[in-house]
Amino acid sequence: MSNPQPKATKVLPISGFPEYLPSERIVEQRFLDVIRETFELHGFSSVETRSIEPVDRLLGKGGDADKEIYGLSRLAGDDEDARWGLHFDMTVPFARYVLENAGKLSFPFRRYQIQKAWRGERPQEGRYREFTQADIDVVDVGDLSPHFEAEMPLVIADVFSKFPVGEFVIQVNDRKIPNGFYQGIGITDVIGTLRIVDKLDKVGPEKVKAMLLEAGATDEQADQCLRLAEIRSTDLGFVEQVRALGVEHPLLEEGLESLSNVIRTGMAHAPGKLVADLRIARGLDYYTGTVYETQFVGHESWGSFCSGGRYDALASDGRTTYPGVGISIGVTRILGLLIGRGLVTSSRSTPAAVLVALKDDESRDDAVAIATALRRRRIACEVAPSAAKFGKQIRYAERRGIPYVWFPGAGESGDEVKDIRSGAQLPASADTWTPPAEDLVPAVTRTDHR
Amino acid sequence: MSNPQPKATKVLPISGFPEYLPSERIVEQRFLDVIRETFELHGFSSVETRSIEPVDRLLGKGGDADKEIYGLSRLAGDDEDARWGLHFDMTVPFARYVLENAGKLSFPFRRYQIQKAWRGERPQEGRYREFTQADIDVVDVGDLSPHFEAEMPLVIADVFSKFPVGEFVIQVNDRKIPNGFYQGIGITDVIGTLRIVDKLDKVGPEKVKAMLLEAGATDEQADQCLRLAEIRSTDLGFVEQVRALGVEHPLLEEGLESLSNVIRTGMAHAPGKLVADLRIARGLDYYTGTVYETQFVGHESWGSFCSGGRYDALASDGRTTYPGVGISIGVTRILGLLIGRGLVTSSRSTPAAVLVALKDDESRDDAVAIATALRRRRIACEVAPSAAKFGKQIRYAERRGIPYVWFPGAGESGDEVKDIRSGAQLPASADTWTPPAEDLVPAVTRTDHR
Repeated sequence: MSNPQPKATKVLPISGFPEYLPSERIVEQRFLDVIRETFELHGFSSVETRSIEPVDRLLGKGGDADKEIYGLSRLAGDDEDARWGLHFDMTVPFARYVLENAGKLSFPFRRYQIQKAWRGERPQEGRYREFTQADIDVVDVGDLSPHFEAEMPLVIADVFSKFPVGEFVIQVNDRKIPNGFYQGIGITDVIGTLRIVDKLDKVGPEKVKAMLLEAGATDEQADQCLRLAEIRSTDLGFVEQVRALGVEHPLLEEGLESLSNVIRTGMAHAPGKLVADLRIARGLDYYTGTVYETQFVGHESWGSFCSGGRYDALASDGRTTYPGVGISIGVTRILGLLIGRGLVTSSRSTPAAVLVALKDDESRDDAVAIATALRRRRIACEVAPSAAKFGKQIRYAERRGIPYVWFPGAGESGDEVKDIRSGAQLPASADTWTPPAEDLVPAVTRTDHR
Repeated sequence: MSNPQPKATKVLPISGFPEYLPSERIVEQRFLDVIRETFELHGFSSVETRSIEPVDRLLGKGGDADKEIYGLSRLAGDDEDARWGLHFDMTVPFARYVLENAGKLSFPFRRYQIQKAWRGERPQEGRYREFTQADIDVVDVGDLSPHFEAEMPLVIADVFSKFPVGEFVIQVNDRKIPNGFYQGIGITDVIGTLRIVDKLDKVGPEKVKAMLLEAGATDEQADQCLRLAEIRSTDLGFVEQVRALGVEHPLLEEGLESLSNVIRTGMAHAPGKLVADLRIARGLDYYTGTVYETQFVGHESWGSFCSGGRYDALASDGRTTYPGVGISIGVTRILGLLIGRGLVTSSRSTPAAVLVALKDDESRDDAVAIATALRRRRIACEVAPSAAKFGKQIRYAERRGIPYVWFPGAGESGDEVKDIRSGAQLPASADTWTPPAEDLVPAVTRTDHR
């Protein structure tokens, strides 16, 4: 603790650093709880890394020039700390953690990591400077079995189907498909082509074609790239559609088989949730196999809420290489949409299900004993702040959405509890009474404004 | 996600920024879960604030010159962000949050906040540069009822008694007691005297006396200060002990009554956990009433793990003043002791209670279906990474501490599950089998090296 009362600095929100009111925070907690519980049910171990990394480690990346790193320096110190910056994702710190602790971890290592990250980007709707990500990765030594690429979207489908939101779709591709296809039609700059095709959703096919031509593709090559990118199927139909384009390359065949495995697994264990979508590229050059994106149906313009892929070298110390596959849920992005637009709300602003009313100040000890008995059975409650008139105490509960008010000694044979929504008041004992399950914790529900 | 493979930067821990291995992280999570659940049972609402505050707000403090703030700057940017720093506690951001959202909060406002904070201090055992604190505060408008001062230690006693650690003691004092006492014996520099007496545990009574004399106290005044600081009682006995010193002052009387209330409440609802300890001062000049510290019995040399107090002005916007009372658990400090010294451990390094074994690669789909059935009933599990020999699959589970291995179709009538600790293998169905409650989640227990 420190002196909490500063000089009168203006109190202002800081753009890109979102904060929630208590009832909104309950929505965020519910989403985080669902994510954590589901990751753990799937056998992922929690890891938390420090918030900082050496700046040269953060900077040692390709292809992400738009990422802006926050550097750290002690206001009252030398420059010793100036070599550190706040991490901008979980992947860089996790790769370092794997190298640092390789001797103490069991491989294949399944970990989840739910933490804040920071990027000095220009804030806009859906983009933040401080944000929470929830990642899972599986990392192995030397080789990573391809079935893990099929497992990732099952975990994500399990998480998203527990959210109080509408339909979602996990779009999957395999980088070997466009890689092989482009090579099969004689394109040499595979990465450059991927980056251009990745803009399809943003700029449309005509602009993409113009950019491909400008980059040196022939008219026919550009058309073929666009035809490939238009292929989409919820079953294995994409294989025939690709074959119909008449291109052959060993890498293409590998990619088709790999993506078929992922889609087949999805059809078996998460039916209707996965789609093979050959325009998904994740314009980052280190993905080497399956890539994932996720959209909410009806909110496609917000882009992907959950993305990832396979990399043959998650980490390497020069001698040993650690391949991995991972996927990252943009928690703050999802909540920016759902809370920001009031699509999901909480029934109350406090965990308390019960307010223990106070007859007079002398009876506070009795009220605390009732609260203790309720808490012992995991019923969250608080004692009224003052022995005001009961009407005022009920309004105190109402303002917070607390559904029950407990009146010690109100009945002939003991206490009574009132459901302040219905007005029903019944005899109750703090050692046995339990609220209905739906009132025990705040209800986090979708508001249907559609 | 970003390019996870940097150039070969040396991989090193950073002093003062602790990280845990997966099994240690499970211990940390258990502690955090107990804290959160208990705070919520007591009706505190969660708040999370952004990690940064304007530097002038962070600097606008008195008496904490040793606190070193990490300032932020974008590596690839202008100096717009240089006005921000990482928060070093939860109190400064919470005070700002209250001012910013006063119109949307219901008072008295009960909030908890579990977050990381950063201080550029020289790291040492029990002191970190990045650390997690868990705070509760009650804040009101204008006036704050004194019963909240008695409530805080009850919440903390509830938290600490659920930890798998030994005995603890919450030491309580009221700043009005030394304030009034010092004035009653003619000392004028009350704050300076408090600061000196606060060093009693560190330097001993002789040095404290010398410092008091040096600060201008008479021999008799210094002796009286030391006599007051020696008073300690688990009941209301402290009142008579203070009176026996023969000092009178209205503020002293107020303090004795206030502390009596806190101790009386503790005796009723957390017997044996609270002690009136008149040497507790919390050498910060903004506490105005009750102050708290907490020690683990047998680890007194580590100092306080949980501290706080009442402040008449948690926040103020010039027109309205918000008094508060709060207490903060030093989570990283506690874990630094318990994990660092191996006093508390987890039975496994993964949440998985079951490993579903794999007969051959073709049966992976069946194994995934079994895992899905177990997860539906909230049993954490994973499918074996490869169809290796069963002995190897069992060793995979063993290395992680996973207690059960599931063998699909191993029995005459279906699946079997093996407790790999006892070797007992029994028929089981994924739709009905449940492990004993103590195996469902990792056991976090005290290791008795004493």
